[in-house]
Amino acid sequence: MAERRNPPVLRRTPLADAIAVLDGLPCALVGQEMVPLEDAVGRVTATGIGPRQLPCAGAQALADGYALAGLETVGASPYNPLTFRLLGSAAPGKPFPGSLAPGTAVRVAMGAALPPGADAVLLSEAAQERGDSIDVFDATGPGAWTDAGNRSPKDPDSPLLPAQHRVRAVDLALLAAHGVRELAVQRVPRVRILVMAMQAASAAAGASAVTPGVDATGPMLRALIERDGGIVTDCIELAGDAAGLSDHLAQPGANLTLTVGGTGMGFNDHTAAIVGEAGPLLFHGVNLRPAESVAAASLPLGPVILLPGHPVAAAAAYECLAARLVRRLAGRSPDWPHPARRVRLARKVSSALGVADWCRVRITDPETAEPMPLSGPLSLAQLAQADGFFLIPPESEGHPPGSIIDIHAYA
Amino acid sequence: MAERRNPPVLRRTPLADAIAVLDGLPCALVGQEMVPLEDAVGRVTATGIGPRQLPCAGAQALADGYALAGLETVGASPYNPLTFRLLGSAAPGKPFPGSLAPGTAVRVAMGAALPPGADAVLLSEAAQERGDSIDVFDATGPGAWTDAGNRSPKDPDSPLLPAQHRVRAVDLALLAAHGVRELAVQRVPRVRILVMAMQAASAAAGASAVTPGVDATGPMLRALIERDGGIVTDCIELAGDAAGLSDHLAQPGANLTLTVGGTGMGFNDHTAAIVGEAGPLLFHGVNLRPAESVAAASLPLGPVILLPGHPVAAAAAYECLAARLVRRLAGRSPDWPHPARRVRLARKVSSALGVADWCRVRITDPETAEPMPLSGPLSLAQLAQADGFFLIPPESEGHPPGSIIDIHAYA
Repeated sequence: MAERRNPPVLRRTPLADAIAVLDGLPCALVGQEMVPLEDAVGRVTATGIGPRQLPCAGAQALADGYALAGLETVGASPYNPLTFRLLGSAAPGKPFPGSLAPGTAVRVAMGAALPPGADAVLLSEAAQERGDSIDVFDATGPGAWTDAGNRSPKDPDSPLLPAQHRVRAVDLALLAAHGVRELAVQRVPRVRILVMAMQAASAAAGASAVTPGVDATGPMLRALIERDGGIVTDCIELAGDAAGLSDHLAQPGANLTLTVGGTGMGFNDHTAAIVGEAGPLLFHGVNLRPAESVAAASLPLGPVILLPGHPVAAAAAYECLAARLVRRLAGRSPDWPHPARRVRLARKVSSALGVADWCRVRITDPETAEPMPLSGPLSLAQLAQADGFFLIPPESEGHPPGSIIDIHAYA
Repeated sequence: MAERRNPPVLRRTPLADAIAVLDGLPCALVGQEMVPLEDAVGRVTATGIGPRQLPCAGAQALADGYALAGLETVGASPYNPLTFRLLGSAAPGKPFPGSLAPGTAVRVAMGAALPPGADAVLLSEAAQERGDSIDVFDATGPGAWTDAGNRSPKDPDSPLLPAQHRVRAVDLALLAAHGVRELAVQRVPRVRILVMAMQAASAAAGASAVTPGVDATGPMLRALIERDGGIVTDCIELAGDAAGLSDHLAQPGANLTLTVGGTGMGFNDHTAAIVGEAGPLLFHGVNLRPAESVAAASLPLGPVILLPGHPVAAAAAYECLAARLVRRLAGRSPDWPHPARRVRLARKVSSALGVADWCRVRITDPETAEPMPLSGPLSLAQLAQADGFFLIPPESEGHPPGSIIDIHAYA
């Protein structure tokens, strides 16, 4: 098999060095954009989302109700309603023009600015209107249902969300309550995938036509890239002889290019040579099994990472190297995003000194993991059976059976 | 505040009983559909994806190359090439019509069926064609680059992916290599959200118009529902007096309806009464803080879950109750999907006996969690600062400082 022939002739850059090279590539090129609140989950804030970005500068109502001085409601109950004089209405963008004297209140809509003299919102259902006054049936406290209580008292201008924050579902309620309709987020990095078809490449045999759509790696990479915050703009199959690769490398429009296949040292492996003509290779060959032939280059239009052709090797190279760059371009932490899971190894795992092994595991009961073989033919089925992986560093010879390890779990 | 007034008059169904009621609702209504491979990640297989569903019934080539008998290549090397007679070509859907005699090989494209006599695929780059023969430079083994080695030897018909399997990125390579272009998955459950606006509902004050788009809960719920495998078909704001709610409950098109607001026992709380007219309430009131007023009903068109109006209470009721039903409708496990994370509590947490507390926590260093207050006004900002949560069951009075607990972490 080709991959067993290749590694000896490649320079084996240590994995840690290859990671350091990729982590050093500049990443500020992707830029930012405004997105509606509904589309912001999973995106990374480009700026702090704070009071200065908000429509109103003062304390804001977080519910519809009545703005008043919270301490004046102390003692109110259904059996002892307190009466406030009603002055008017304040709506988002239309603050009440006056200020509140003691014993007065003003209707506010969620998002409205509180007038001077008010420090709390009483919910509508805790009061009943009678002509130009309200009966208050419940006590509220200073800051209740306003954003004032939701900021650090030491820093009233502290942002609602910091910059570089990955927006979660639970953030949306706070933003929506403050009237935030859209926010500035990092752009999604655009990734181009160029697949060298595995095929009979002999021109004499007339077999250089590509069978479109049989690529096994593209769909997997697309899903992994989306997981990491990127988007695949093109997934293009080239002939196994990499004809046309130079032209594709010269096309703008992607922040990162991944090539798949043709990275070895066989007589049908042309990818590294062609990429190397466009710009210097940062490394070619890493002590990472099963992705020994992975390479990277920094071209004028952006970085290129060269993944091996076997889907399992491509997965290893993507997860251990390329994914870090995708996440960094997306404004995320480069570290593995998979949840950690502590398991007991059902069998021993042996690893050669000097080699980092990307070890796939299958969870057989909630706390036990069966390691997949590290040598022998690479199996797509074993990859599909994997529930996660861990990395055995070059300085380790592996783990005895029963070892407790933390794996990176697939969702 | 309204929520402090409500609980005493509600029947407090134990949380475990409310969960059991929801888990008992029928869930087979959502059905299945075919989706392209590229869109299958995160979806749940409706059937096993196996050999019988595949275009070819025999062992298949997982790469382009030459089909031959693996054992006949033993000893082949660049210094000792072995010669095979080349018989023709097999492509996906066009199997080679004959069978292989010893010393012969046939070109195969990825996805093609292997002819009788062949048990392995030799990669193209391990051979060179010379007229009607090939020189083989590398040994391969029986089963190499075929799907035969990827199935259990005891059950050649075992599926590539089982039914009820949530498709991950790493599954796509195996399916693509077998020529699977689309697969049968569970339909995405359709969820309708009906929000009772928090507003001055007094008709006398002429304030019953809804301010559209200021709902703080809808965007958060939408993101949580999508996380759980559902899709929001409508998010409709109704007036705080719930006018029109009956009509919306009678509209088909959703597998599940969530209402937000108006679940308490105040004089402006109408949701439970109106839903109750359409069908019996399964429960109204649960010993879950801060979602004491949550309710559920089973209507002719499907289940309805009534979430409290405050966004933090709505989040609690969704995460602890409604989310289980969304996940089950999507064919997923009802259990919490959040990754578990073991942390040390920075402060003590006190919980009343008989009350289940949905306790939000903020991670302050990688292994320490600061619990958010369980009483006092509910804070949207504290929800947005939360890195996860854990549940304190009714029989617990809480945890002393320094306790080690497992939280459910937000991504």
